[in-house]
Amino acid sequence: MFEFKIRKKAKNTLARSGVFTTPHGEIKTPVFMPVGTKGSVKTLSNQDLKNLGAQIILANTYHLYLRPGEKTVKKMGGLHKWINTPLPILTDSGGFQVFSLGTEKGHSQNKEFKTTVKIDDNGVMFTSYLDGSKHYFTPEKAMQIQHDLGADIIMAFDECAPANSSKEYFKSAMTKTHNWLIRCKKEHERLETIRRKGIYEDDEALRVLQHFPQALFGIVQGGLHKNLRKQSAQFVNAQNLPGNAIGGLSVGESKKQMFKMIEVSIPHLDENKPRYLMGVGTPEDLLECVNRGIDMFDCVHPTRMSRHGSFWTQEGRFAIKNEIFKTDSKPLQKNCQCECCKNYSRSYIRHLFIENEILGLRLLTIHNLHFLLNLMAQIREKIEKGTFKKFKNDFLRRFTKSGRKKIRS
Amino acid sequence: MFEFKIRKKAKNTLARSGVFTTPHGEIKTPVFMPVGTKGSVKTLSNQDLKNLGAQIILANTYHLYLRPGEKTVKKMGGLHKWINTPLPILTDSGGFQVFSLGTEKGHSQNKEFKTTVKIDDNGVMFTSYLDGSKHYFTPEKAMQIQHDLGADIIMAFDECAPANSSKEYFKSAMTKTHNWLIRCKKEHERLETIRRKGIYEDDEALRVLQHFPQALFGIVQGGLHKNLRKQSAQFVNAQNLPGNAIGGLSVGESKKQMFKMIEVSIPHLDENKPRYLMGVGTPEDLLECVNRGIDMFDCVHPTRMSRHGSFWTQEGRFAIKNEIFKTDSKPLQKNCQCECCKNYSRSYIRHLFIENEILGLRLLTIHNLHFLLNLMAQIREKIEKGTFKKFKNDFLRRFTKSGRKKIRS
Repeated sequence: MFEFKIRKKAKNTLARSGVFTTPHGEIKTPVFMPVGTKGSVKTLSNQDLKNLGAQIILANTYHLYLRPGEKTVKKMGGLHKWINTPLPILTDSGGFQVFSLGTEKGHSQNKEFKTTVKIDDNGVMFTSYLDGSKHYFTPEKAMQIQHDLGADIIMAFDECAPANSSKEYFKSAMTKTHNWLIRCKKEHERLETIRRKGIYEDDEALRVLQHFPQALFGIVQGGLHKNLRKQSAQFVNAQNLPGNAIGGLSVGESKKQMFKMIEVSIPHLDENKPRYLMGVGTPEDLLECVNRGIDMFDCVHPTRMSRHGSFWTQEGRFAIKNEIFKTDSKPLQKNCQCECCKNYSRSYIRHLFIENEILGLRLLTIHNLHFLLNLMAQIREKIEKGTFKKFKNDFLRRFTKSGRKKIRS
Repeated sequence: MFEFKIRKKAKNTLARSGVFTTPHGEIKTPVFMPVGTKGSVKTLSNQDLKNLGAQIILANTYHLYLRPGEKTVKKMGGLHKWINTPLPILTDSGGFQVFSLGTEKGHSQNKEFKTTVKIDDNGVMFTSYLDGSKHYFTPEKAMQIQHDLGADIIMAFDECAPANSSKEYFKSAMTKTHNWLIRCKKEHERLETIRRKGIYEDDEALRVLQHFPQALFGIVQGGLHKNLRKQSAQFVNAQNLPGNAIGGLSVGESKKQMFKMIEVSIPHLDENKPRYLMGVGTPEDLLECVNRGIDMFDCVHPTRMSRHGSFWTQEGRFAIKNEIFKTDSKPLQKNCQCECCKNYSRSYIRHLFIENEILGLRLLTIHNLHFLLNLMAQIREKIEKGTFKKFKNDFLRRFTKSGRKKIRS
């Protein structure tokens, strides 16, 4: 279980294709993981995800901990059974949300309370974005919650420092992340031992969880400093976990900085383990980061931009509400095989958005996820054929140059 | 075309089963027509409607006239092509919305303008609920718009008086409705003649519309007065249209009054024509009105209550957000064959509603429409088997008695 097999390495690039085995099936990499924050990939049913060919979905520990609570999910037989998906699931540790939703820039603006976050060496005290109630997360707690949720891949509890932090702060956050990783690993091993012993046997629903081991991934931090990133990658890699993630990027830094941080980390991450870049999900970034050796991605961007009325074509990104689509009988993208493009015109989808019809949100979500998952399938295919580099350059030329200016088909 | 064949008449009741033939296929009656106000049955795709076994859907002339405009829909090849449904469509005349959205109780409350409605013998001047712009509908205009939209069944332009009107007002509204019906019929015949001549032939999209004749239904008014209803039913029936509707009910009167008005109208409506009761759609009302000789129904209630978190079971109506469902692993309704019940638990659907997840709205819509469409299928079956009366009584006993108090399965 949790074995990663490299199928093919591309030439003149760090891109590779592979297969990662989980208790809920194999994942072909490079892979994009649609995000179901609260246990639902927004607007989509499991049948939709199956039709889209999604291989794995992500859910958020922070949100599910607050509601309905991990104990409720556990009682319902764990995440897979509760949300009824046959797909592998990855849960994050809650760390990112604790920090991003715990600052003044978070959801607190329109509420009567102010959310806060207070970090110490042992863990993080934060206020819920829902009701201002106080909660304390430790590495151990993050593991316990994720064991109750029961995802296939679980993430270490880390401190994700803002992009504008000082080097000193980045370093202290990194050190904390490393110390917490050790504690996560220890607690995870303790919980895995208990699981294997079958303490759940007296409860039918809980027995489901017993059969599915979980893989813990560590997270590289270090902010925007090459030496810290290198140091962190070496430390995380040394834990010899089934996979390694790079966190703390795509949080406000430049693309150039992001790519540089990936480039300095990758050489220190075991090439026989999957490498997961957290929170990245535009077509351009996926191509560039696969090119730099990343195997796994997640991001709310494709699903969120869909609900805001944007869609991708081979020629870039467009707004469906644009007047030019009012009597456009063509599909969003010529020859696209998604349920949206096979059945509906730009004219009708535009009308749905103008009228705030809920179907519109689902149709664009289907199209954009299809676009991205199809891009990933093409990337895998091109890597195996040895033509990834050419494919990447051709795609980006068309996507970033002609896009946003003119729409042809 | 537009032939109505009675298959079976139930005993000791006016219920009957039949088949109504339209250019887009046969409709088995009694039938419930899901409402797609703006050209979309809210939250559902055409595939969803197909899975549900919907036979015909409704769309609203008032809303489509305002946005995107009937000329846009016509340019896109008519409603069927634009929204891409193979199902028959019925459009209302816009009359009901003109009045209901044109009063101070309408959408005007949160706007900077006040919507108004001014009726004269020739037609109705009203302000758009969207932007306060002025519009004038006449019977002829209502026919022209509906011809551009291209539904299979179109409705006459009528005046739907509020339930608290005086007898004098009900009478004058009825007289206006009758005069307008004559004008609708004349304009409809003129437009049908033009259509048959094929004036659209120079435009590929418009040519689609040319092949589909439309059936005009008249509408019985007369408020809550037996003699007016009788008079109106006789007048409307005398126009010898392919179908007859009863309007102006379910607008605030008591159930007893509503049933009485149906009872006095039905004997005067040709039994070899379908009878359509406008705006009615609870399980209880469907059973009681089929029992009184109604063949067709429409209502936003099932889809609207779904979005508000209510669902039907054999034992009545329930609120999904109720705490008792938090860890309830059962489907909404035991043995229900809808996509929602076959895949998701009350616990998960409750979570989706608590979290405002869009999937929840679609799942309850699917369940409630399945519940109602399945009820109609059972009604047709029981009529043909000669057991309708018993079925009705058994269903209502369970649905209205035990419902709202206890939920068993």
